[in-house]
Amino acid sequence: MGMTAAVAGASGYAGGELLRLLLGHPEIEVGPLAAGSSAGRDVVEVHPHLPDLAGRAFVDTSALTEADADIVFLAFPHGASAGVAATLPDSVRVVDLGADHRLADADAWRRAYGGEHAGTWTYGMPELPAARDAIRVSSRVAAPGCYPTAVTLALAPLLAAGLVETEDIVVVAASGTSGAGRSPKVNLLGSEVMNDLTAYKVGNHQHRPEILQALGGLVDTPVSMSFTTVLAPMPRGILATCTARLEPAVTTDALRGALLTAYAGEPFVRVLPPGRWPHTAATFGGNAVHLQVTADEQAGRAVVVAAIDNLCKGAAGQALQCANLMLGLPESTGLTAQGVAP
Amino acid sequence: MGMTAAVAGASGYAGGELLRLLLGHPEIEVGPLAAGSSAGRDVVEVHPHLPDLAGRAFVDTSALTEADADIVFLAFPHGASAGVAATLPDSVRVVDLGADHRLADADAWRRAYGGEHAGTWTYGMPELPAARDAIRVSSRVAAPGCYPTAVTLALAPLLAAGLVETEDIVVVAASGTSGAGRSPKVNLLGSEVMNDLTAYKVGNHQHRPEILQALGGLVDTPVSMSFTTVLAPMPRGILATCTARLEPAVTTDALRGALLTAYAGEPFVRVLPPGRWPHTAATFGGNAVHLQVTADEQAGRAVVVAAIDNLCKGAAGQALQCANLMLGLPESTGLTAQGVAP
Amino acid sequence: MGMTAAVAGASGYAGGELLRLLLGHPEIEVGPLAAGSSAGRDVVEVHPHLPDLAGRAFVDTSALTEADADIVFLAFPHGASAGVAATLPDSVRVVDLGADHRLADADAWRRAYGGEHAGTWTYGMPELPAARDAIRVSSRVAAPGCYPTAVTLALAPLLAAGLVETEDIVVVAASGTSGAGRSPKVNLLGSEVMNDLTAYKVGNHQHRPEILQALGGLVDTPVSMSFTTVLAPMPRGILATCTARLEPAVTTDALRGALLTAYAGEPFVRVLPPGRWPHTAATFGGNAVHLQVTADEQAGRAVVVAAIDNLCKGAAGQALQCANLMLGLPESTGLTAQGVAP
Amino acid sequence: MGMTAAVAGASGYAGGELLRLLLGHPEIEVGPLAAGSSAGRDVVEVHPHLPDLAGRAFVDTSALTEADADIVFLAFPHGASAGVAATLPDSVRVVDLGADHRLADADAWRRAYGGEHAGTWTYGMPELPAARDAIRVSSRVAAPGCYPTAVTLALAPLLAAGLVETEDIVVVAASGTSGAGRSPKVNLLGSEVMNDLTAYKVGNHQHRPEILQALGGLVDTPVSMSFTTVLAPMPRGILATCTARLEPAVTTDALRGALLTAYAGEPFVRVLPPGRWPHTAATFGGNAVHLQVTADEQAGRAVVVAAIDNLCKGAAGQALQCANLMLGLPESTGLTAQGVAP
Repeated sequence: MGMTAAVAGASGYAGGELLRLLLGHPEIEVGPLAAGSSAGRDVVEVHPHLPDLAGRAFVDTSALTEADADIVFLAFPHGASAGVAATLPDSVRVVDLGADHRLADADAWRRAYGGEHAGTWTYGMPELPAARDAIRVSSRVAAPGCYPTAVTLALAPLLAAGLVETEDIVVVAASGTSGAGRSPKVNLLGSEVMNDLTAYKVGNHQHRPEILQALGGLVDTPVSMSFTTVLAPMPRGILATCTARLEPAVTTDALRGALLTAYAGEPFVRVLPPGRWPHTAATFGGNAVHLQVTADEQAGRAVVVAAIDNLCKGAAGQALQCANLMLGLPESTGLTAQGVAP
Repeated sequence: MGMTAAVAGASGYAGGELLRLLLGHPEIEVGPLAAGSSAGRDVVEVHPHLPDLAGRAFVDTSALTEADADIVFLAFPHGASAGVAATLPDSVRVVDLGADHRLADADAWRRAYGGEHAGTWTYGMPELPAARDAIRVSSRVAAPGCYPTAVTLALAPLLAAGLVETEDIVVVAASGTSGAGRSPKVNLLGSEVMNDLTAYKVGNHQHRPEILQALGGLVDTPVSMSFTTVLAPMPRGILATCTARLEPAVTTDALRGALLTAYAGEPFVRVLPPGRWPHTAATFGGNAVHLQVTADEQAGRAVVVAAIDNLCKGAAGQALQCANLMLGLPESTGLTAQGVAP
Repeated sequence: MGMTAAVAGASGYAGGELLRLLLGHPEIEVGPLAAGSSAGRDVVEVHPHLPDLAGRAFVDTSALTEADADIVFLAFPHGASAGVAATLPDSVRVVDLGADHRLADADAWRRAYGGEHAGTWTYGMPELPAARDAIRVSSRVAAPGCYPTAVTLALAPLLAAGLVETEDIVVVAASGTSGAGRSPKVNLLGSEVMNDLTAYKVGNHQHRPEILQALGGLVDTPVSMSFTTVLAPMPRGILATCTARLEPAVTTDALRGALLTAYAGEPFVRVLPPGRWPHTAATFGGNAVHLQVTADEQAGRAVVVAAIDNLCKGAAGQALQCANLMLGLPESTGLTAQGVAP
Repeated sequence: MGMTAAVAGASGYAGGELLRLLLGHPEIEVGPLAAGSSAGRDVVEVHPHLPDLAGRAFVDTSALTEADADIVFLAFPHGASAGVAATLPDSVRVVDLGADHRLADADAWRRAYGGEHAGTWTYGMPELPAARDAIRVSSRVAAPGCYPTAVTLALAPLLAAGLVETEDIVVVAASGTSGAGRSPKVNLLGSEVMNDLTAYKVGNHQHRPEILQALGGLVDTPVSMSFTTVLAPMPRGILATCTARLEPAVTTDALRGALLTAYAGEPFVRVLPPGRWPHTAATFGGNAVHLQVTADEQAGRAVVVAAIDNLCKGAAGQALQCANLMLGLPESTGLTAQGVAP
């Protein structure tokens, strides 16, 4: 084991998931773990599910500047990565799990997140056309957001193959509560979220421009999308229901065929057998994307449903998948497509 | 208290909810309670949350034929109501919580449910235009389905006001598990449904024709809809995200205005203040419908979100609301718009 | 409707439950609603499940001093009631849902809660011997805690009848998350509490002296108890497993007999039929206590299990039950033994 | 990779967990997978969380007799293992996850389970004194039950060290729903178990004799125990609250010291730092046991709390731990102490 990873923002949920994955990674050692307000605390006090980190404490983020690491993961809320990234030497590879470096359009970034745009890094979704090679040669990669991962992987092959219209896409995607982060807020208390489904940020979720950018890169026509997000009473998982208007005479077989072709050989994308629809529970703790599609002729729409674990394939797992590529390791090292169920 | 209600199918979830509501109803007494395979069992063994029914046992459904009741509720799965309804005297009022008598188009019924169409009863959604008066004078009323209640009440005012296009409506609606009934099935076990969201019956849910019928009755143009249903990890509640293409220059204010106008004075429909989106938990155990709407100009769609309790407003509560009207009682008797939260 | 209730601490979970109950109470009107940091906010913004309070806003607690109310409910965390209570005129009746006035022993209070003991009010558990009459004539009543309600009602008849030893009682009781209140804390986030059971305050829970006081009042011998509390992944409900050493030759029948005798005619305490054990879900939203007992001869212990809704019978419901008695109303007015299930 | 494992009863929850672990095991290949009524079905249809088993189908249990496997795991409900075990050649190692071969006392077995006692195999709890060596040289091992794993590991060091009395132990243990298996039963439906805690099999749970046997083997005095089990609204996890009367002058430090000494160097047993109590969520998907203890002097009892994942350390993980020992592999191969959280 010759490589070492440092993690900043390691006290949050995505950071914790990354630590879990790194502890099972045969080629990467867990290096310095930084946290903001939790600096100085024992790691296992914050992450009691990681007993093998007993004896380790969080350091201050500033300590990463001089850390001896082959790769640094930044697991911050949006707006916080850019400043830290700027302090890291060029020689170290960096994967940003946050939103700061995902968008190419600075105006779009400012509208979505506010503040200054920090720049654009290689977009870390290996399953998109040509992306894998770009990630391999990058020293700075922006890992995609959780919703964009589910929605983009669901729709990209259909758009790229010209089977659906690119305008008037309609997506409704529900996420478990870890997607909302670990900040103590009344509306995220267990008492509030159990037994509850609620729509939020309707019409103005910050992930919409990221999805439009990813899909827009695949086609020559404008892409538009209605995007509604829902908070669901479970800790993990995203189920994205993605619909787009069918081009004439497109059948379910054609849609499935496009998915199967696009993802042939992909270690983490699984197009389910006909008749079976994705369950988020089947992706819990794993890096898999489960997909199914149908052509609803009565409605004139393709319906693709994607399930992922928002913390794994939607955050830490995908970041590690990118890191493996950047470090010249087999892409699946330390990752699994199996979920923990029930 | 001069009136008596009999309930058939009283051992299921909708039946149990109806019993709970009837026990709190000041004008209607709980009469004979019939169940199929549970006939002979103690009611409180099946419904331990209803201790005031201690000492009561389920009777066989056939006993209802000669029951002395002012109103009979049929709470069966689809296909089972028609036969029982045929044995009841004309003099007794009947509300069917099942699907047998909801559709006017016999072919649509057969395609959705299979078997023979039993006929068409007054559709029991009092908040639709002219519906309340029709229910009052009917002796046979078909209570709407759970999804159709949420979706129709969300979209009807927008379609009726001409603010959205009637074709290419897209609805994604998630339901708690009680919507799937009380039959023991592996896929409904707690171990399977907790932590899980899954899409099901994509493109062929039996509630689509009912929604299309209800909405189609409000406009002169064809209505089409993509309809995806999702099973959510909670016992009760439906959250329906309903989108439709905006007619030119329609604003959020116009959409809200249509909802407010349509539901002014309605005891159970609440259009939330701007900025607040419906939570299913806020409707738990109550007969309320919570609505919010926005005009997403970037996507060109109106997005209306509705939350209900699928067992109450989506089943037993609405059935009792109809029964009150049929019996000449104040419509809200024994019902509340308050939910039980957290 | 001639009476009016004011509620202080109305923005919390117990306060919200009280408002829900009061809205359904035929004899008491909802008067001024006070809250601390939420003063000035719309009530329905804080309690979206109570749409009938639309248009109402929380006032500052100080406004209650001059409020025109027949009864004031104090729904504060411990330590906050005493100060407010002191500002209320003697002529108004007061029920304290908090802990400030429950204990007779000032030292015990200080050890459990810290700070100064405010005094001792009539203990508001109507089902205890002689308690109902005392409550009726009191103008100040301390409503019991949630765990003490479940545990005391489970064990009191067995101790009073001399069927079990009073020392070395062992209780393990699990509560839903609303028992921990509405403060935003990381350990109460939905992401943390779902899928989780955890023991807390082991050996030093503040409710132990209250239980010992209530049980100790029934017997002449010392009472001692091991008391472990567990946080459970559900919003409401307490399940208390209470064991005590059997006196010689005591049978299950004798134990059940003691419960049945003690609670004959009680509107809210239900001893389940043999073979059925309490479910918290069956008490959800209702004021019922469900009990079952067995004599485990192999272990030499009686095991009594109690289920309640911690927010209703364990807080707001019991407070209203007391208020009804204090105001000369039928004890069950506005309350139900039925739960909302599933 | 030279070894192969066969699994019988592979369609259940424990079987599925074993398959998940085996897929991540570097030294054991997944061999034939047998199931009863699911024979012939695709494995991924039954276990959609295990996509790497795509293309595999369950075989009939009878096919195992001639299977070429180094080890066979039997993951049946009680009563079913013995018959299959009898058909397996002596040359193959066998781990029984079921109850058939756990008890030495045939009468105790018959009282707990009914039917004929099949015999007694080496008890597979490696952390008990002398157990590890016995497992290493056994070709037939009975993996312990889920509750016995949590309770025995919690109490064994205290009894062995003479710090607590061996009579009048009181245990209340709550389990997630997967502990009840995958059979479709109404009382295990998601609608029934969510929001619910219920006690079950009070005073007569079949795991009591197994715990008494394991603890009894450590001391010379009689052991007696009150044992109450609770079903909790989560798919996985056991939290066991175990209390025993303190011997004179025993302190918390002495109790912790006994746990620390007994489990020094154990890869899967973690005694938490003072002040932190076990969370089941921290063990989700991992093979860890989390323990904490206190001496409650007021009650005269030691309280030890244990958390495990019932499907992993409580079933499949422990079985694999034993298999590793039996096969001469490092004990932790393919297992982790990390949980999947949140």
